[in-house]
Amino acid sequence: MKRVVIIGSGGVAEALSRGVAECENLTFVQVYGRNRQRVAEVSQLVSCPIYDSLQDADIYIVAVSDRAVEEVTRSLSFPEQSVVVHTAGSVAMDAIDHPKRGVLYPLQSFTPGRRITISEVPFFVEGADEHTTQIIEQVANKLSTNVMRMDSEGRKTLHLCGVFASNFTNAIYATAADIARSAEIPFDLLKPLIKETCDKAVSVENPRTVQTGPAVRGDIKTQQRHMDMLQGNDNLEKIYKILSLQIWETSKKM
Amino acid sequence: MKRVVIIGSGGVAEALSRGVAECENLTFVQVYGRNRQRVAEVSQLVSCPIYDSLQDADIYIVAVSDRAVEEVTRSLSFPEQSVVVHTAGSVAMDAIDHPKRGVLYPLQSFTPGRRITISEVPFFVEGADEHTTQIIEQVANKLSTNVMRMDSEGRKTLHLCGVFASNFTNAIYATAADIARSAEIPFDLLKPLIKETCDKAVSVENPRTVQTGPAVRGDIKTQQRHMDMLQGNDNLEKIYKILSLQIWETSKKM
Repeated sequence: MKRVVIIGSGGVAEALSRGVAECENLTFVQVYGRNRQRVAEVSQLVSCPIYDSLQDADIYIVAVSDRAVEEVTRSLSFPEQSVVVHTAGSVAMDAIDHPKRGVLYPLQSFTPGRRITISEVPFFVEGADEHTTQIIEQVANKLSTNVMRMDSEGRKTLHLCGVFASNFTNAIYATAADIARSAEIPFDLLKPLIKETCDKAVSVENPRTVQTGPAVRGDIKTQQRHMDMLQGNDNLEKIYKILSLQIWETSKKM
Repeated sequence: MKRVVIIGSGGVAEALSRGVAECENLTFVQVYGRNRQRVAEVSQLVSCPIYDSLQDADIYIVAVSDRAVEEVTRSLSFPEQSVVVHTAGSVAMDAIDHPKRGVLYPLQSFTPGRRITISEVPFFVEGADEHTTQIIEQVANKLSTNVMRMDSEGRKTLHLCGVFASNFTNAIYATAADIARSAEIPFDLLKPLIKETCDKAVSVENPRTVQTGPAVRGDIKTQQRHMDMLQGNDNLEKIYKILSLQIWETSKKM
């Protein structure tokens, strides 16, 4: 049974710790990191003792922020025969200076305290050589039913997709909430619409086929009225204009 | 018991027909419209006979597209004592030329064939006078647990919120799907992330508090790399830039 150490204590580290600890075919060894309080919290979540030093393991999963991967892996010394992977979407595999290096990228948004069904998370695997890749794949397949190989280039594209599908979507939600608030309409009233829009999009092959609204209908009059209402807020005017244009242009190509 | 006629046969008409027909405290009289095939389909869904002429009712719900409201209501003659409402977000109440006129606006995205839990849909009510408003409210309260009064001005803002929360969100999903496709990554792999992003946003008071990604972190390096990947697609470059700016600027104001 593969022994696993998780390095880091944020949302990804917490979710992976839970996933590994709950998996009967993996041995959860420790969660290791600089933030002692969070390490203690995550260790307690998975009922694991806390060690002051890095323990022996078959695979080290460096689940830290994209910017910290290189520094954190350099600051630690890993056993020669172990595999060391990071979980960062936008970081190349070679950011890790270790012969048996690789990547285990989960395409999901993790938040400390929120439970995720880890078995449904798509994991993208890359390894420095075939043997290393297979070891990472073995571990990934025990965590999830959705594992694929993906090189650093493909992973960059995935990460960009994630920015649209998650970060930008959330920004749009926040903007809708702002506009509602300006008319003293509680955000709660938008939630059934937000949920249905998401449910509908994930029920189809291509969300463009269920696009609705003034932009796809070419209803310029309504669009103009909306633009008038946004006047004075430069960003929102631009967002309205460019998204409407994108909807119109792409719908014509279908 | 109020007798209800639905005029129109699109997504809104279908959902309201189901809602009224399933409501023990309302009498569903007929669905009426120009598209005979769709009228037949909706009538069958709710096990209701088809009539060639407009039947007597206490309230007529004109559930047609925003642009058709005025023309359709003008083309019909309603009994003097009946209430006539439309369901259009962006249309003023006075588009209806009838003394007892009003609006019954459901803030939801309706698609023919998709079932919606009508009792959870927020309905916004407006009437030409207090008595008319109360009749519309009575009907709305039988359909949904979420009924509020809202004048034509407020409803315009709601409609704009809906464009962001639904139409623009869907456009972002479609764009993410495009980018994925360009790297031969199936849209299916983005779905767990899309669902979690939505679930997370509707679990909070303000989606801005759960914003993640390179823009909110001020990670210019990653943003620049993403912009490079989008080069050659003007719309996507602009969308990336303005949404990142919006995320950065609004997060600073929190």
